Formats: sequence, structure tokens, C-alpha cells
Amino acid sequence: MKSTIPEPTLRRLSYYLRYLERFKEKGLNIISSKELSIALGLSDAQVRRDLFTLGGFGKRGVGYDVSKLFNFLNTFLGLDNLQSIILVGCGNLGKALLQYKGFKKRKFIITHAFDNDKRLIGKKIAGINIQDSKEMQREIRKHKIIYGIIATPASSAQGVVNSMIDYGIKAVLNFAPIKIHVSQGIVISSVDLTTELEWLSFHVHHGT
Amino acid sequence: MKSTIPEPTLRRLSYYLRYLERFKEKGLNIISSKELSIALGLSDAQVRRDLFTLGGFGKRGVGYDVSKLFNFLNTFLGLDNLQSIILVGCGNLGKALLQYKGFKKRKFIITHAFDNDKRLIGKKIAGINIQDSKEMQREIRKHKIIYGIIATPASSAQGVVNSMIDYGIKAVLNFAPIKIHVSQGIVISSVDLTTELEWLSFHVHHGT
Repeated sequence: MKSTIPEPTLRRLSYYLRYLERFKEKGLNIISSKELSIALGLSDAQVRRDLFTLGGFGKRGVGYDVSKLFNFLNTFLGLDNLQSIILVGCGNLGKALLQYKGFKKRKFIITHAFDNDKRLIGKKIAGINIQDSKEMQREIRKHKIIYGIIATPASSAQGVVNSMIDYGIKAVLNFAPIKIHVSQGIVISSVDLTTELEWLSFHVHHGT
Repeated sequence: MKSTIPEPTLRRLSYYLRYLERFKEKGLNIISSKELSIALGLSDAQVRRDLFTLGGFGKRGVGYDVSKLFNFLNTFLGLDNLQSIILVGCGNLGKALLQYKGFKKRKFIITHAFDNDKRLIGKKIAGINIQDSKEMQREIRKHKIIYGIIATPASSAQGVVNSMIDYGIKAVLNFAPIKIHVSQGIVISSVDLTTELEWLSFHVHHGT
């Protein structure tokens, strides 16, 4: 199914999911669009529009069924099943990502980590054995993994991503501070920490 | 000076800066919009439009002066001087950020780190002493720091940001997986690693 959901709405769905999960944990069964909008810092109309886009949840004057909406969003975002991720590049950032517990809550698990630094290969971080990058092809194919995180230096990132994709990776989360080019059909998202700081700097210097 | 630069252009400027720096390191003096566009994966027209927005650099058929453009962008983004940052929350992610060397290249330096966990206070990570969060007010005011990074759990993030801002922080980079509300005049940028994975998951499941 090809998506027709606008990108900003899509990004917000992750936030809805997160808050719905908290409401569930608190034992709330029904939530109004007003309560959702306050929690998320959006307008009431925006929340109603977003959820209408998804197929019209909730009844006028009654609100939304928390569990139903949570389950729907979970399936909609493809988060029903456990998803394996490989991580390439086990420097400071890579090591931190291996230890990061936030992914697991959304059923993403880094199952394999690779590096080409002899001093890192064989080490265990958060229970995951760092393997030689040469093993990448075999592991991706054997376990049919489609998610990859790249945390290598900028200079080697594009080459590693090309290999990942050759071996079967379909979605890449890039932490290397460089623009990565991928062919059509491959999804990529980049997180560039320094760019974020530069963006803040600009706004501090030019007014927001 | 109030900014009239469109957000997507602004985000691209960080990339221009990065590539210009590499060109400089390679000893290149002049770069054509075509070469820039290939490196950045943008169209030639886009590059010319972006740089025109900034005030029209380059001469037709000659190209752009690498150093001049680099220096201009550096000043434009407010990166001329060293900028101090405080970091609050020294768990796995916070520790990794303290060790991350990428910030320094853009003259951002985490100078103070805080946590309220007794087991962390007093420890030194990458040369930075983790201080009790109670010291935050004194340090921000004393050193007139305006940048803050938040890497606490979601549950305490909003409270910590409120305090930061009370004490003088003007720009916040948020790593807590929660929507943070700030008053006008304060800039905030959020990096949510799990949201990025969810976005990839959606596109993998619905086609890109």
C-alpha cells in the first residue's frame, strides 16, 4: 500500500503512539481529542484532522478508545513484530546506540554490530558481539535483516551504505555527518547532531 | 536580524559548510555550482538558488571562492566564536554525547554536565566533571551559557528544560523522547531516535 499520508502527519503519529502508550499505562480507556491535543501541544482541530486522515476514529462527544487507537497506529507504522537492526561503526556513538534502551520499547533490536577496527572486533557491548565488517554480508543474508544503522566516520559512510544495500538492507538510519545517496526503493533518514546545533545557533543569532 | 531564509535552505547550509570545509582541506580554491551540487546530491539550479538567497556569491562561468563562501556561512550561522553548552542527564546517551567529538569541529563545546544521580555525580567523562543538578543555576549564570542539551528520561525532561530556561538558556537540543514546550524566544530542536526508526518502518511497510 502506497502511503498518501503527509510527512508531517506521519512524524506526529510516533508522538501519538507514545502518549497513547502512557495513557494505557495509566489505565485510561478513553481520551478526548482535547486531552490529546494538550499533551502533544497541538490544536484540537489538528488532532481531529490527523486522526480523520487515518480513517476516522472516535465518536463525537465520546472520544477515542485508547487501546484501539494504539493498536491501529502500531500496526500502521509496521511495529507489530520484532525488527532486527545491524549497526556498523562501533566508535563512541555506535557504542552508545548499542546501549540505548529506547529502541527496544518499539520492538527494534540491534542484533548485530560490525566494525573493521581490530581493537573493537570481538568485544561485547550490551551483550552484542562486535564482528568484523567482512561478516556483514553473511549475517544480513542469513537473518534477512532489512534495517541498518550507520555510525562510521563520514569518509567511509557512503561505501558502507552501498554494501549494506547490496546485501539486502532496505532502510538506513544514518548518523555519519555526510549526505548519503541511495537508490530508489531504499529509505534513509539522517540524524546529524552538529547540524542541529548549527540550526539552533542560527536562530539564536537571528532571532526565532 | 530576523531570518527570512526558508527552513529547508537553512538546514542545507550546514551541509554546504561541511563540504566547503572538505574542499578547503583538499586545497581547492574555486568550486562550481555543478561540483557542489554533485557532492550534495542537489540539482545545479537548487545550489545556485540557495547561494543567491544568501546574497549572490560566485561569478558566471567562474564559480565560488571556497574560503570566502566558507567564512560567510560560518559567520552567518553564528559559528565564529566558541560556544559553551551544558548537558543535563548523563545516562548512556548523555555519556556518549560528552565523548562525541563532532561538536567541537563547529566550535561547540560541552563545558558542564549535570545529573541528579548520586552514583554519577563527581565522575569524569571525557574530561568533564558530572555535577549535581543543583549546581546548574549557578554555572549557567556564572558563565552566561545559552545552549543546553537535554538527555534525561522523558518523565523529567520538561521540568529540567523549564529550569534551564529560567536560568538563562536560550537554545535547547532535546534528546528525551517527549514533546517539550518552550515559550516564545526560545529555540528548541528535538532528536528522537525511535521516531526516526518508526518513520523508516512505516516507509518499509508502505513503500517509499
